[in-house]
Amino acid sequence: MSGEATDKTIAIVGAGLVGLGWAIVFARAGCRVKVFDHSEQIIEELPGQLTTILADLVSFELLDDAEAVSARITLTASLAEAVRDVSYVQESVLEQVKVKRALYAELDGLLGPDTIVGSSSSGIPASQFTEGLSISPRCLVAHPVNPPYLVPLVELVPADWTSPQSVDAAYQLMQQVGQHPIRINREVNGFVLNRLQGALLREAWALYDEGYCSVEDIDATVSKGLGLRWSFMGPFETIDLNAPGGVADYAHRLGDLYLELARERTDPQPWSEELIDRVESERNQLLSRDALRDRTRWRDRRLMALASHKRDTQDSV
Amino acid sequence: MSGEATDKTIAIVGAGLVGLGWAIVFARAGCRVKVFDHSEQIIEELPGQLTTILADLVSFELLDDAEAVSARITLTASLAEAVRDVSYVQESVLEQVKVKRALYAELDGLLGPDTIVGSSSSGIPASQFTEGLSISPRCLVAHPVNPPYLVPLVELVPADWTSPQSVDAAYQLMQQVGQHPIRINREVNGFVLNRLQGALLREAWALYDEGYCSVEDIDATVSKGLGLRWSFMGPFETIDLNAPGGVADYAHRLGDLYLELARERTDPQPWSEELIDRVESERNQLLSRDALRDRTRWRDRRLMALASHKRDTQDSV
Repeated sequence: MSGEATDKTIAIVGAGLVGLGWAIVFARAGCRVKVFDHSEQIIEELPGQLTTILADLVSFELLDDAEAVSARITLTASLAEAVRDVSYVQESVLEQVKVKRALYAELDGLLGPDTIVGSSSSGIPASQFTEGLSISPRCLVAHPVNPPYLVPLVELVPADWTSPQSVDAAYQLMQQVGQHPIRINREVNGFVLNRLQGALLREAWALYDEGYCSVEDIDATVSKGLGLRWSFMGPFETIDLNAPGGVADYAHRLGDLYLELARERTDPQPWSEELIDRVESERNQLLSRDALRDRTRWRDRRLMALASHKRDTQDSV
Repeated sequence: MSGEATDKTIAIVGAGLVGLGWAIVFARAGCRVKVFDHSEQIIEELPGQLTTILADLVSFELLDDAEAVSARITLTASLAEAVRDVSYVQESVLEQVKVKRALYAELDGLLGPDTIVGSSSSGIPASQFTEGLSISPRCLVAHPVNPPYLVPLVELVPADWTSPQSVDAAYQLMQQVGQHPIRINREVNGFVLNRLQGALLREAWALYDEGYCSVEDIDATVSKGLGLRWSFMGPFETIDLNAPGGVADYAHRLGDLYLELARERTDPQPWSEELIDRVESERNQLLSRDALRDRTRWRDRRLMALASHKRDTQDSV
């Protein structure tokens, strides 16, 4: 997961949970990382959080030398200082158009002529906050999954005015630091990951709403069933191997069934307050609301164990 | 994954890939298993296939004693002999209403008064082949995922006339043999697993068709992203942990986005021949059609490695 070593210098702008995750990704791969956040509190808390995460990574044998990684990360006192002489900026500020627009206007006067900017935006397309700047052709979305040092996927989504060279440069950098970039050819609501997740969630909420199944049992359908294959192969490869003649054979066998299922879902409804209450209440039975934070830490430890497992079985199986 | 030991006697009717998988599940848990198939060829090939799979399970430390498991499986010469004095029949014959109807009519005269019948039907609901028999209240769908000795989920789907006691008995048996049963309260097209898979596939095919992304990159979105969490927690738990206040908080933050995405997909289209050809051709570039069988064996070895990993991290993380 650590990719090729690279000695590039990277700026992290916005150092909340997402920015910190990115700092680890780049520093782990050998980059020098300069971090900036407007919030003094975030900057003060960062070293402690970093130490905790790096220690966890070492304990799961996902990292050898925590101190070396830590030493490559520098906190800076200003945006100008953070982005000076860097080849790439990973922006992870608040998910609000206004906030992002103001930042990009500021970056426009600060960046060198070849610096690329990737935004961690999870939903707002780059066209909404990078228009009409000298840096516009060098801006795109580089949407990670949390935490990026455990889940390698990065969605690269250019605006109309993003140059192909910038997408290529971001793609190469992501590969160099051990992430798995994908190219989305043009902007689309929710990008690809959240569209796939949304499609599955829509069906899950509807099946629960209609009384077919409990929340717990719908979750088990994924965690004890569908999700096992999907942790090492995608939906197309899954069906490619699920019919003797491959994906075309599968599509001919099951296309009519899937079309019928889709035709039963042509009238999407909002999740009502009553429905949300019922789901919340079932989840509360399964996991007390007091235990959410502990369970989140458990999830991250499971992801670490899985990352270690995937690294060890990638080529050996 | 092996559950509580149980010394029940089980009949496997239909011994293709699915039936063989079930025989391993029950025998591994200590059951005596009697197998019947109308096809002499299937019965002849079974011992060799069984030996290969059991050796693989031993090599991944998922099984201690292959010979003991093998010794609990008996091939029988007639349906009557197979189902005599068994507490449960797992039916895995051809996925055709006519074939299943004929079999259930025959079973009606052969089963003891307490024997439950679970069908491996992956799509046909039990109401279409178990009507008007003395055994009707004891018949239901028990739909596995392939191969069931590696993927524990079993969907239990009663017909209107299936007794609650029969569902309970099937549920307990599945737990005893180490499977993970879920209860679907009434019949629904595609049951739950294929409805969730179908929803995600629909979006995946549409995104590819509209030129947003390659097949390979859509697959990576799952295998390097979404699928990692989903291999140990379901979609509801995932979102429950993805907002500070839990699932209700998440639904309030993201419900509008997901509704918007759903509203972009209200007119489902069949997968056209041209689209199927393009997907097949991309997959062929990624995996030569000659290599499908080898890749299927690779998939099963990956599932074995994952099963072993999940068993070892279940409680230790």
